[in-house]
Amino acid sequence: MTASAAQAHFLLRSVIKGIFTPNLVPFLDDGRINEGELRRMVNWLVEKGVSGLYPNGSTGEFIRLSYEERKRVIQIVVEENRGRVPILAGAAESNLTMILDACRTYADLGCAAVSITGPYYYKVSQESIEHFFRELAKRSPIDIVLYNIPQYSNEISVPVLTRLALDCPRIVGVKDSSRDFPRFLSTLHAIKPQRPDFVCLIGCEEILFPSLLMGADGGTIASSGVVPEVIMKLYRESLAGHWEEAKRIQFKLLDLIEAMLYGTNFPEGFRVGMSLRGFALGTSRQLLSPKEQTDLEEIRAKVACLLAECGFEEAAHACRRQTGGAVLPPPRGGAAVPPAGGGLDVSGIVQEVVQQFRAPKTPGHP
Amino acid sequence: MTASAAQAHFLLRSVIKGIFTPNLVPFLDDGRINEGELRRMVNWLVEKGVSGLYPNGSTGEFIRLSYEERKRVIQIVVEENRGRVPILAGAAESNLTMILDACRTYADLGCAAVSITGPYYYKVSQESIEHFFRELAKRSPIDIVLYNIPQYSNEISVPVLTRLALDCPRIVGVKDSSRDFPRFLSTLHAIKPQRPDFVCLIGCEEILFPSLLMGADGGTIASSGVVPEVIMKLYRESLAGHWEEAKRIQFKLLDLIEAMLYGTNFPEGFRVGMSLRGFALGTSRQLLSPKEQTDLEEIRAKVACLLAECGFEEAAHACRRQTGGAVLPPPRGGAAVPPAGGGLDVSGIVQEVVQQFRAPKTPGHP
Amino acid sequence: MTASAAQAHFLLRSVIKGIFTPNLVPFLDDGRINEGELRRMVNWLVEKGVSGLYPNGSTGEFIRLSYEERKRVIQIVVEENRGRVPILAGAAESNLTMILDACRTYADLGCAAVSITGPYYYKVSQESIEHFFRELAKRSPIDIVLYNIPQYSNEISVPVLTRLALDCPRIVGVKDSSRDFPRFLSTLHAIKPQRPDFVCLIGCEEILFPSLLMGADGGTIASSGVVPEVIMKLYRESLAGHWEEAKRIQFKLLDLIEAMLYGTNFPEGFRVGMSLRGFALGTSRQLLSPKEQTDLEEIRAKVACLLAECGFEEAAHACRRQTGGAVLPPPRGGAAVPPAGGGLDVSGIVQEVVQQFRAPKTPGHP
Amino acid sequence: MTASAAQAHFLLRSVIKGIFTPNLVPFLDDGRINEGELRRMVNWLVEKGVSGLYPNGSTGEFIRLSYEERKRVIQIVVEENRGRVPILAGAAESNLTMILDACRTYADLGCAAVSITGPYYYKVSQESIEHFFRELAKRSPIDIVLYNIPQYSNEISVPVLTRLALDCPRIVGVKDSSRDFPRFLSTLHAIKPQRPDFVCLIGCEEILFPSLLMGADGGTIASSGVVPEVIMKLYRESLAGHWEEAKRIQFKLLDLIEAMLYGTNFPEGFRVGMSLRGFALGTSRQLLSPKEQTDLEEIRAKVACLLAECGFEEAAHACRRQTGGAVLPPPRGGAAVPPAGGGLDVSGIVQEVVQQFRAPKTPGHP
Repeated sequence: MTASAAQAHFLLRSVIKGIFTPNLVPFLDDGRINEGELRRMVNWLVEKGVSGLYPNGSTGEFIRLSYEERKRVIQIVVEENRGRVPILAGAAESNLTMILDACRTYADLGCAAVSITGPYYYKVSQESIEHFFRELAKRSPIDIVLYNIPQYSNEISVPVLTRLALDCPRIVGVKDSSRDFPRFLSTLHAIKPQRPDFVCLIGCEEILFPSLLMGADGGTIASSGVVPEVIMKLYRESLAGHWEEAKRIQFKLLDLIEAMLYGTNFPEGFRVGMSLRGFALGTSRQLLSPKEQTDLEEIRAKVACLLAECGFEEAAHACRRQTGGAVLPPPRGGAAVPPAGGGLDVSGIVQEVVQQFRAPKTPGHP
Repeated sequence: MTASAAQAHFLLRSVIKGIFTPNLVPFLDDGRINEGELRRMVNWLVEKGVSGLYPNGSTGEFIRLSYEERKRVIQIVVEENRGRVPILAGAAESNLTMILDACRTYADLGCAAVSITGPYYYKVSQESIEHFFRELAKRSPIDIVLYNIPQYSNEISVPVLTRLALDCPRIVGVKDSSRDFPRFLSTLHAIKPQRPDFVCLIGCEEILFPSLLMGADGGTIASSGVVPEVIMKLYRESLAGHWEEAKRIQFKLLDLIEAMLYGTNFPEGFRVGMSLRGFALGTSRQLLSPKEQTDLEEIRAKVACLLAECGFEEAAHACRRQTGGAVLPPPRGGAAVPPAGGGLDVSGIVQEVVQQFRAPKTPGHP
Repeated sequence: MTASAAQAHFLLRSVIKGIFTPNLVPFLDDGRINEGELRRMVNWLVEKGVSGLYPNGSTGEFIRLSYEERKRVIQIVVEENRGRVPILAGAAESNLTMILDACRTYADLGCAAVSITGPYYYKVSQESIEHFFRELAKRSPIDIVLYNIPQYSNEISVPVLTRLALDCPRIVGVKDSSRDFPRFLSTLHAIKPQRPDFVCLIGCEEILFPSLLMGADGGTIASSGVVPEVIMKLYRESLAGHWEEAKRIQFKLLDLIEAMLYGTNFPEGFRVGMSLRGFALGTSRQLLSPKEQTDLEEIRAKVACLLAECGFEEAAHACRRQTGGAVLPPPRGGAAVPPAGGGLDVSGIVQEVVQQFRAPKTPGHP
Repeated sequence: MTASAAQAHFLLRSVIKGIFTPNLVPFLDDGRINEGELRRMVNWLVEKGVSGLYPNGSTGEFIRLSYEERKRVIQIVVEENRGRVPILAGAAESNLTMILDACRTYADLGCAAVSITGPYYYKVSQESIEHFFRELAKRSPIDIVLYNIPQYSNEISVPVLTRLALDCPRIVGVKDSSRDFPRFLSTLHAIKPQRPDFVCLIGCEEILFPSLLMGADGGTIASSGVVPEVIMKLYRESLAGHWEEAKRIQFKLLDLIEAMLYGTNFPEGFRVGMSLRGFALGTSRQLLSPKEQTDLEEIRAKVACLLAECGFEEAAHACRRQTGGAVLPPPRGGAAVPPAGGGLDVSGIVQEVVQQFRAPKTPGHP
């Protein structure tokens, strides 16, 4: 690596920081990707001020796309982003050849880094996983963020992760979606003192604030696709050391997160949430039964109320409160629920975010 | 469906019966599929008398192939088989469009049926899984065998499976690799009395004989790729009602199965076994660490001894017995181990199988 | 051990064979054990011809009794049995001192052996478990049957079990309730060739017949407390090599077993079953919610129908068939359901069992 | 309840707050409880300034004691405490009668509250668990802290816990050892706004500080039995809002916690730790194999170094650093390791704690 390449490399690395939004994929009625809507979503998110984009993650249902579709998604996101925010591209292909092909493609497109899970489907030994990532790190033309999500793929254990972090410059970070906070703290403790620039992102939105407080560099947060204003507010309050306020927002978010996470297949709840912000998500590739479709309407009504309560008026029309089975319309007067004292002052948040967005950016970080 | 199509359909169905060998995939040094060796393996297996072939299953590492490679594997197997045995083609693609595309392709090639797992990676509700398979069954041009393997993908519960079996003619059977024998008996009990032609294959080789005894129509048995002579012998003895002999073979096989199943990533042990029968399997796509490579040599030596003990002399040279860490050569005199009284008379088995293979076949079953 | 003691020991061992009925514990309204009813149950079971009794197992809710109550249960069972059948006494106390105290007590009472689970509550290493059982085996005055039930307590792995079986004469058998049939076959294969008298009991009733066929010495079968006639019939048909008949009974039993196993806390379903045979089980120590109590009535109605269908007329009055939510009385004419062609000829079974019971017994086994 | 009783009750409640130390149980060579040493431990802990004592928890191996021994442990702890700190008594007996008996006994002895796990051994439905605790709450003469530890016993789900908290005044708190931080935050969020006095204790020491920060009222922290000075320092820094310092201590503690938690059966590592502080713990009731005993020596050496590094000089003699298999003595000069810049200034801590201990206490809380 030449001196200037090394410097460029350094700069590149520093951008994997903050809130990366995992892009949902909108579909057309015939099942194909709705490319126009995806482009609109990219612009909306960047304008809302998220730190980066994270297409082809679990939220982006990468496994349900064909390889060609996955590459197409990255291309669209890169095109529409126009260099405004760094892109972390999911590249969890299922064999080394395809992963390397994806790495080259995404490097050429200018992505900041790729994210790769432990192997999925089979159980694979930790030794094999470590060896595999060492080989990959030697040959990848782009920085790698390891993606630990033991719910869906083989865990990458803390000792393996630590050795990889300390030995492989190409492996620049970890995104941990295990929901295991003791594990996340052990990771920070094992790696950061020896490699402070190793990026530790949390992938569990219920604990975003405590993670930031303990030293996380940011997170990949699916709800930042639905309420980017609120998540960025939480992030900024954390950075500013306004911990009581950050804590208040974190707790406030729990209802919304739980409404979107539970009661239906992942990531249906988040698709519902984003549709309430005005996007046409279409039908998921993982079909729901007719009864589940009906149940989803209830989740939709509940999420709508929570969004309306936060001040997102575009969601208010879909807020229906249930009373013993019957579904009631929201109270009169426009907003579903008057902004309660305990609620979030979203108009203020939005204003603040937009201002910050319009302000001249510090170099290397939007 | 016309009358003759229905009849053809009926005939076709009846061939999903007996021992289907899950095809391993041999690789070249550069990582590509070793097509010549795959062709040689197909011929060898058919000549050994297995009932059918099962490419693109878990043993066939379908998940580690690209979609194009998966289709290529089926094409090669079909070509080389030349209609001699029925082919059950794995088609567990990750979305409905691709599954239907695979179904059409494999139907056109003349496969007998496709095998499809529950969704993998995400957790998906049983309701969604049922709905998904109903949709698929409506639109598939080829018969479907549902593949239950909860270790690697979402379970297909017995109630869901039963409803699908009773409602969907296109779903003609189940292959159960859950290792859960009470579940397998419940499946037989729930479906067979109402739909006797529903094919129940066991995918757990340690319990092949008890499964056959209790009413399984056969099995997909990875070790039938390594010792087809022995597995077919077990199958025939079971069919003939020679239960004591079948039981003896089943127990005898346990050591071999365990040696190939445990101590390394699946399906490395089976790749080792088949290499000892004279095939060049090449390097697995799931890399092993250097230490694991060394450990695999020990497994190879152990499997070699077990094969030699069964009379497969081609494996004898690789049999090394360990004594407290040191590895000893096999006893002098050619064969690694003299055919013990408790061993299998393999020369007899082979002769019998070959004779049966050369004999005129009963119609509808090779 | 003197020569005659050794011989007595040998005779004793041989009696742990066949169907051992895990005794349910009936309770009074004030929560105490209903001793009178327990005595009546013991007599009924022995008269029905079960091979042995197994008090203080999981079915006997040993964990919900006090230590004094557990000892009282054994005393009652021993007293009432009057030496007619061998008794396997659960002695899974939670520390070595108490286990040894229980062993001494049950040895003095004349029990044939004790049954001991792996440690429960904590996760304990396999090495510690092996060491613990070696210590226990050295000091126990009574034969030990290890009880593998990984659902509720630490697994006793096959390698540990094998070493204990081969090294410790006091450990005379295993009762395996893991529902893992491949494991059970591995156990038989690992131990029986080297120690043929090691007793292997299956503790999973759905697979009793296949287990017997593959070499089990018997089973601890909770449903033998509800339909001892049928289970003993299955056992005798298996012993006699009438495998088709045994298989038919096994499948026939699946509905009943599933009705009693699922839909409520274990062992409520079996308590319901036995109450339908005329015993007053009282309220379980594990309280059910009011809704669960109502649900249990449905299970009761279903079990009653299955029992009536098998010819147990005493259960017919409680058989209520559900039609879309409504509960219908059984068809007119006395019996809930006329003994179907596919049913079990229970009057014949009962007669046969009673005859066999009255016939002079072979020494050492009733 | 009379007015003054209600007031007393209120005062009592407020004392379940801060760091409760789960008491380890020391044993004599003959296996009996070492009562003298237990008394010495109680005094030492109270003098070190812990907020309360928690005998008969999982750390206290309650399951391995007889019922009489469990009651004896509480009696000893109460006697030796002499009213100085509140006592939370584990009362997780295995049936309602015994739990109520324990509750009465511990109430009479003056304990502040009892702690009760979900049922262990069997799987029990959430509905039954809820109903059971409602019954218990109606009849208990002492406040109840529910103890959620799904690793060892049935989970108490957040919805069940929430309903119990809102409906049952007797249920005054929860101790959550699930290691599931999102769950803990959901608990705080679901209950605290509606019942602010409901006590939420964290039982996972790796996340003590983040839990306190997010609103935990304290924790039951096994390592507070080993390094009470450090845990109390962390607690006080958290209360004082010195979050950076609390965070630093939390990370510093991770090595020690991990050394004591992993590599041996729980709670052996903590027994080792406390023995290094000068207590005679004796042999655990859960035997270790000879090899595990040897391995424990390595853990002991490692824990000793970590303690010495923290300034606990009494542990320095046992610190042996391993170099590739050989074990080296600590560097010369007394202390095993010179107090590193990153270390904890323990002499300062101790002084501070002792001063605070000697200072006049606020009423109701030491």
